[in-house]
Amino acid sequence: MLRTHTCGELRNTDINKTVTLCGWVQKTRLMGGLTFIDLRDRYGITQLKLSATIGNTEGYGRECVLKATGKVIERESKNKNIATGDIEIEIESIEVLNSSITPPFTIEDETDGGDELRMKYRYLDLRRNSVRKNLELRHRIAIETRNYLDKLQFLEVETPVLIKSTPEGARDFVVPSRMNPNQFYALPQSPQTFKQLLMVSGFDRYYQIVKCFRDEDLRADRQPEFTQIDCEMSFIEQEDILQTFEGLVKYLFKTVKGIDIPTLARMTYADAMKNYGNDKPDIRFEMKLIDFKTVTGGANFKVFDDAEAVIAICAKGAAEYTRKQLDELTEWVKRPQIGATGLVYARVNAEGTIKSSVDKFYNEDALKKWAETCGAEKGDLILVLAGAEERTRKAASELRLEMGNKLGLRDKNKFSCLWVIDFPLLEWNEGDPNLLASLAGRWHAKHHPFTSPKPEDIELLNSNPGAVRANAYDVVINGVEIGGGSIRIHNKNLQAKMFDILGFTKEEAQKQFGFLMNAFEFGAPPHGGIALGFDRLCSMFGGADSIRDFIAFPKNNSGRDLMIDAPSEISDEQLKELNIENIIKKN
Amino acid sequence: MLRTHTCGELRNTDINKTVTLCGWVQKTRLMGGLTFIDLRDRYGITQLKLSATIGNTEGYGRECVLKATGKVIERESKNKNIATGDIEIEIESIEVLNSSITPPFTIEDETDGGDELRMKYRYLDLRRNSVRKNLELRHRIAIETRNYLDKLQFLEVETPVLIKSTPEGARDFVVPSRMNPNQFYALPQSPQTFKQLLMVSGFDRYYQIVKCFRDEDLRADRQPEFTQIDCEMSFIEQEDILQTFEGLVKYLFKTVKGIDIPTLARMTYADAMKNYGNDKPDIRFEMKLIDFKTVTGGANFKVFDDAEAVIAICAKGAAEYTRKQLDELTEWVKRPQIGATGLVYARVNAEGTIKSSVDKFYNEDALKKWAETCGAEKGDLILVLAGAEERTRKAASELRLEMGNKLGLRDKNKFSCLWVIDFPLLEWNEGDPNLLASLAGRWHAKHHPFTSPKPEDIELLNSNPGAVRANAYDVVINGVEIGGGSIRIHNKNLQAKMFDILGFTKEEAQKQFGFLMNAFEFGAPPHGGIALGFDRLCSMFGGADSIRDFIAFPKNNSGRDLMIDAPSEISDEQLKELNIENIIKKN
Repeated sequence: MLRTHTCGELRNTDINKTVTLCGWVQKTRLMGGLTFIDLRDRYGITQLKLSATIGNTEGYGRECVLKATGKVIERESKNKNIATGDIEIEIESIEVLNSSITPPFTIEDETDGGDELRMKYRYLDLRRNSVRKNLELRHRIAIETRNYLDKLQFLEVETPVLIKSTPEGARDFVVPSRMNPNQFYALPQSPQTFKQLLMVSGFDRYYQIVKCFRDEDLRADRQPEFTQIDCEMSFIEQEDILQTFEGLVKYLFKTVKGIDIPTLARMTYADAMKNYGNDKPDIRFEMKLIDFKTVTGGANFKVFDDAEAVIAICAKGAAEYTRKQLDELTEWVKRPQIGATGLVYARVNAEGTIKSSVDKFYNEDALKKWAETCGAEKGDLILVLAGAEERTRKAASELRLEMGNKLGLRDKNKFSCLWVIDFPLLEWNEGDPNLLASLAGRWHAKHHPFTSPKPEDIELLNSNPGAVRANAYDVVINGVEIGGGSIRIHNKNLQAKMFDILGFTKEEAQKQFGFLMNAFEFGAPPHGGIALGFDRLCSMFGGADSIRDFIAFPKNNSGRDLMIDAPSEISDEQLKELNIENIIKKN
Repeated sequence: MLRTHTCGELRNTDINKTVTLCGWVQKTRLMGGLTFIDLRDRYGITQLKLSATIGNTEGYGRECVLKATGKVIERESKNKNIATGDIEIEIESIEVLNSSITPPFTIEDETDGGDELRMKYRYLDLRRNSVRKNLELRHRIAIETRNYLDKLQFLEVETPVLIKSTPEGARDFVVPSRMNPNQFYALPQSPQTFKQLLMVSGFDRYYQIVKCFRDEDLRADRQPEFTQIDCEMSFIEQEDILQTFEGLVKYLFKTVKGIDIPTLARMTYADAMKNYGNDKPDIRFEMKLIDFKTVTGGANFKVFDDAEAVIAICAKGAAEYTRKQLDELTEWVKRPQIGATGLVYARVNAEGTIKSSVDKFYNEDALKKWAETCGAEKGDLILVLAGAEERTRKAASELRLEMGNKLGLRDKNKFSCLWVIDFPLLEWNEGDPNLLASLAGRWHAKHHPFTSPKPEDIELLNSNPGAVRANAYDVVINGVEIGGGSIRIHNKNLQAKMFDILGFTKEEAQKQFGFLMNAFEFGAPPHGGIALGFDRLCSMFGGADSIRDFIAFPKNNSGRDLMIDAPSEISDEQLKELNIENIIKKN
């Protein structure tokens, strides 16, 4: 080792030891003929003290790599902010292991580098304490996840990355095969079928912390490659999965963050949609969506009368909102991402009177009924949206979250976890941009095609597919879907039926999933599982909104790695060996 | 849970408990009006005892999935071969959870299924105890590897799978980008550059158990995707890496196999090639290659006199080999894979006389000298090959291993580990079928382009590149290369020089590896690392020759997954979205 100690470990008890440290120059200060250097490594910072006799210290610029030997001495002015603050090193010899040109941004917790620049020089961004700590947290969560699952006899099994394209879900990334011309592998969107086959194999309990891939048009917080904690169990019912993975969530909060979280709330999908307009409600605060259709009727207010849905929320203590604030809020709900056509409000003033933006149509009595209906009290603000059911519910959900933000109800250090259960089995695909165009106008599996319907709903599969509920569940923390899963189909005929409903011909189903249906002929056990989004779990634990800083080398929203400049063109020789050519020719 | 216990846990102390078990029917026996069923799960086998009153047991065929409830009772005839052999379950109720058609091969340790069939029905093959135990061993080795490295403050960091093609090494698998037309990602052959960037980032100690990909023409024991234990450390020298990972190897042998292995031997590449004809010698036995050129000269035996190299091995105690055995051995060395033109032998008989196949040319005195030179004693057999240096050395190496097999010197339960060090930095690429054709007639990095030359050899880089030794090392167990690594270049100019020697233009080097050379400008620390082949390590620990049965879902030698039938054709719609087309048209 080039060093005897790290920059984070020397203490008072080490005084008089001769030590050698290696690290990066964080800061250099000249003081009364002495040079003080803050030497940094992953473990901490130690102060080096150089007398003039050591020679020229000009070369020791920021981020230069030094190897320094000297004696540990007590520091005159102790620094209580760092663990090594009681000591410093009186340097006897020093060597520059490597120099550094000036970094394009400062290596500090609060840096002056913009997003693009930090992505391009990610190796410098990763030097920053705050980013490194995120990845240390990630490592810790991975360790504790494994500890928990290992103790419950889950076996970690690696499933293949080069698999087969199954275009019924989101788009696959594909890999041309050189040895099998005209044929392609696909990268897995999840190890779904493999973990089910492991259950058929009798592995009983499987897990994997595994990379998955989805060729989506990227939204702000998606990555083309992402990591999930992927699990499957046999001989279980839904309740066993909920208990086991509620246990994992609690264990992680306890061991990683030192927080005891209570038993997870449970909410049906129907209730979540009704009360929160959303299948991943943030229940750190109430402010439920209230159906105002009845209470607003009969007042000849066309906007409400003609609307399919009229939905209110009651923002506690927001009656003081100024006209300007309310105008801003109105503009906010009218943004295309929210999509409302306008916003009606009613203030319940301190003295109990109610003042609304639609006083022309609703008198004090009518407004009192509004207040009653949504539980508004003195000082509260009622906000009402109207329009088509689905869109209005979605807009009301967004407005609720926005008001939650504005009213400080979404504390990053408070965690509200819940299970959302009883999801619908199917949803109608009107033309989802993340699916192949040829799949539009069909039923699409809400979870995936292997999810089992609730036994009591099976008879609806033919008559009313949209009403069939699934044995499916999501775990939601603070309004973020952290993961989800289902009890799977383990019967060949039911699985074939599902493919039929999803619009597969028998031949297509056999070609793509024949191996799974065949496997079900050889004694498949009842089984089910879950997958947790590991990147998102880490960012949640780290109190961040974006997953990007919890991934060592993330890609940007165009799926590019700005540091290595990928993807990039490949040589004609490579293309030819793969028997493919680009349709879009170079110039 | 559908069960109260697993099929492996009930003991004498559970007698009289009412339990429910789930599992697969391993065997059914009818005896005196009773039916006995061996019920199997991952954890073991438990005997169920069914009286005639339980009803029709005909449906309980092999591999059918049952749920059975009953009372634990003492077994009359105990079975000492299984952990649950003291008890059986007197069944009160039984339910068929799923039926099974007859499996295409028997689910037994010794199965009647051939390779192809077992690959196609891998989910059934994985039910076999022997295969499942391999994957349990793999899980255990992964856990212990993480334990060891976590304790030494290595951080597990996930590096990206969608990276950039760098065709200087083996062939990349590539992934067309839909969002960036005409551009491709590549799958990593190793996380090499990323782990080096993590060192530049100050991560200090990194590891990852990670999937890597190589588009090679597959030999028997290669897989297009494979797993490695990938590690990197900063502020270290070669000796530190050797100590740290020798520690890991010892720790794994101790914790997983209960074996204390001695300090690893060290051997230079030059010595390995000289004494064993091979850079991964099996040192469970001696039988070194002996240079016979001098000792065989001057006898007018043209075969030896004209040969560039004459190499002997001494097979201890093999003088009794019959003429037939020696003829077979001669045929064996003449096979194209071995490539020798013939085999000369000399027996040192029990009475001390020496009888050779070339007595016409060598008298007793000459043969005595042979025996002296290679340390042959009474009862030993001397085998001599002659021809071109490289080919003969290789053939002698193979012959040595074959004789080791024949003489029982390669015991699978004995482990000899060593470091091979001082590898050459470069080798001349005459046209390696695993490299792009355009790279032939160039120097090629023996390890990879980031490996540092030994400082004392740097001056040879211009004058005699082939003689430059690298700071590179391999760990070899029982003649199998388990892993290797190197101290890396951390100086931008030296790295640029390496790319120059490897035939990169400045522009190519900048385009492909500019990010790394730029990173070296910002204070790169001295660093180095290693990667261990995880699949191979597992098969070694499992006492098997092939890695295939230590991978849950392996591919065959054409890179196909026979179970899911991948790779496969994808739809024109998918191809079009990716802006590519197949050169070889359908029909």
